[in-house]
Amino acid sequence: MKLTTEDLKDIARGAAFLGTGGGGDPYIGRMLATSAVEEFGPPDLISVDELADDANVYTIAMLGAPTVIIEKSACGDDVDLALSRLEKYTGKKADAVIPIEIGGVNSLIPIMAAARNGLPLVDADGMGRAFPEIQMVTFNVYGVSCTPLAVTDEHLNSLVVDTGTAKRAEDLVRVCSVDMGCSVMLSSYPMTGKQVKETAVTGTMTLALEIGRAIAEGRRQGDPTAALLAALRKTPYYNQCKVLFDGKVQDLRRETTGGFAVGHCVLAALDGSDRSMEVTFQNEHLVAKEDGQVRAIVPDLICMIDRETAEPVPVEALKYGQRIKVLGVSAPPIMRTPESLAVFGPQAFGLNEPFQPVESL
Amino acid sequence: MKLTTEDLKDIARGAAFLGTGGGGDPYIGRMLATSAVEEFGPPDLISVDELADDANVYTIAMLGAPTVIIEKSACGDDVDLALSRLEKYTGKKADAVIPIEIGGVNSLIPIMAAARNGLPLVDADGMGRAFPEIQMVTFNVYGVSCTPLAVTDEHLNSLVVDTGTAKRAEDLVRVCSVDMGCSVMLSSYPMTGKQVKETAVTGTMTLALEIGRAIAEGRRQGDPTAALLAALRKTPYYNQCKVLFDGKVQDLRRETTGGFAVGHCVLAALDGSDRSMEVTFQNEHLVAKEDGQVRAIVPDLICMIDRETAEPVPVEALKYGQRIKVLGVSAPPIMRTPESLAVFGPQAFGLNEPFQPVESL
Repeated sequence: MKLTTEDLKDIARGAAFLGTGGGGDPYIGRMLATSAVEEFGPPDLISVDELADDANVYTIAMLGAPTVIIEKSACGDDVDLALSRLEKYTGKKADAVIPIEIGGVNSLIPIMAAARNGLPLVDADGMGRAFPEIQMVTFNVYGVSCTPLAVTDEHLNSLVVDTGTAKRAEDLVRVCSVDMGCSVMLSSYPMTGKQVKETAVTGTMTLALEIGRAIAEGRRQGDPTAALLAALRKTPYYNQCKVLFDGKVQDLRRETTGGFAVGHCVLAALDGSDRSMEVTFQNEHLVAKEDGQVRAIVPDLICMIDRETAEPVPVEALKYGQRIKVLGVSAPPIMRTPESLAVFGPQAFGLNEPFQPVESL
Repeated sequence: MKLTTEDLKDIARGAAFLGTGGGGDPYIGRMLATSAVEEFGPPDLISVDELADDANVYTIAMLGAPTVIIEKSACGDDVDLALSRLEKYTGKKADAVIPIEIGGVNSLIPIMAAARNGLPLVDADGMGRAFPEIQMVTFNVYGVSCTPLAVTDEHLNSLVVDTGTAKRAEDLVRVCSVDMGCSVMLSSYPMTGKQVKETAVTGTMTLALEIGRAIAEGRRQGDPTAALLAALRKTPYYNQCKVLFDGKVQDLRRETTGGFAVGHCVLAALDGSDRSMEVTFQNEHLVAKEDGQVRAIVPDLICMIDRETAEPVPVEALKYGQRIKVLGVSAPPIMRTPESLAVFGPQAFGLNEPFQPVESL
């Protein structure tokens, strides 16, 4: 399947929804991918089944604080350089690229990379959502080495990192990313087609496209939130979903620190009651509590949308007074296993509450 | 010339003197090199003239805060890995190694690397003294690229860094070094034999050996300081030298911050007068002022020795009450050019005082 520039709008919107507040602003992502597709032609989106077992597949993404990414974006050469540095280090040319996560920028950067380098894009990723840290992907959980990885900036400075663990790589890359301006390009998790088939969350680019389309279609029909929920219920992963809260932003603390956008957002109910919801984030939303009770928690998805248009609202766009619906959505089953929860469950973020599936809360 | 383990004692002592407070503790350096020479045999020390013009020469050093290096040293595999990562990245095997600086550890690590890898060691370095930052070497001043460079730690995590400028590499490597425990192995400035001949400060390993020997010999004859000064006066670089101050440590502020050992040391005169000298350091001594008047300033060497034994005292060993002689020593002429002063003159360290040769002060 060839991705058209029309598809990119829907992918960016759907991916921003699945990005659970992180993964980058969809407008930036769409602009980057659109200009690449217009200049280099549309890339092929291929299913994991179309990958040869011995194909060399590299992730490509932007890493940093989304609050910075809206001002400091990719230039193209930095994307290509990250890929080529990793190719040089491994000695293996990429046969395909794959998103590391689904998000408004990080689903679109791989499209940009695929278009610019004439490579197919794999319809899968390493989480089926977005997460802030490099080790928080199914590739790592299920045995793929995060390193060697390559990091580049817009001045075409580069790093190749090779560490014993993915967490060690995360710590090193994070301090470098801060020194390089809080937003860098990252190519990591060099793997074979076989490893992709064994560890990836599959079909997520297509799902992002369908979710984005459902929102747009729902707008034309008058109820985008209902259309979004209907679309989610048809998916193999996100079918447990509900509106957790309908409110307006009453309090917002958001700082760019340690290379991340961290903070919390408090919403007051619009139904005249005293209810309120607090959502805590580290790039992505981590836990949503209504009057102190957990309503959804990582790795399940906590997604904020504009209450009228259902447009996903990333953390960097949150504003005082904004009308927001908060949705809780089930994570893919591969993300809820004990192995996965050990890497990106609540404890990995310093939260005390145990994981409970959103459908049971 | 083959370096014996007896030579290593003198080299470590002489190099620690030329290290001007930095470059690492000579005891650590000597132990590291001695065990490598005992296990792998003594390496050849060769002059720059013995290098083929197209030889591949790599620096190898420890980078970090000397206050940390005394507790967290090299394991050997980390040294080899830094070299081999750089070799892999450049695609060129090393034909020889060269010290990046002269110092109690950083003249000995290259001996260790040479012994372990069966390579000759070049009798030269990039400053004829020690400096805290990667860009502060004649190789950089006179046009050799600092990168690609490789950084490793004792867990054998590694980085290969490729940047537009040496200062950019310094900034990136510094934050990584802090994250890796404030002391890492560094192989950098991959260059040809021709570049070494054009840019290095030559003969400095031999000079360190002679200076260290003179101190030992002077002790046997009863006046090690006089023997040291006599030896310095015979060298082509360090012949302008004098005792700037004879005192005891009255005040010492030393912290490990930003990846460096920074602070100042105030000495009170032992002659009964009210005179005092303040020496400011960032790993190495930067400026020595007597009652507010500059007596010596970078890149000239400010060296502290025990007033009885003339044993060099590195900044990490300074103690309250210690009896110290402070020497001012001329830097090699190649280090005093306008090009060099732009990279490691007083302004590069944020000092307001202009450079003035120690012999004119």
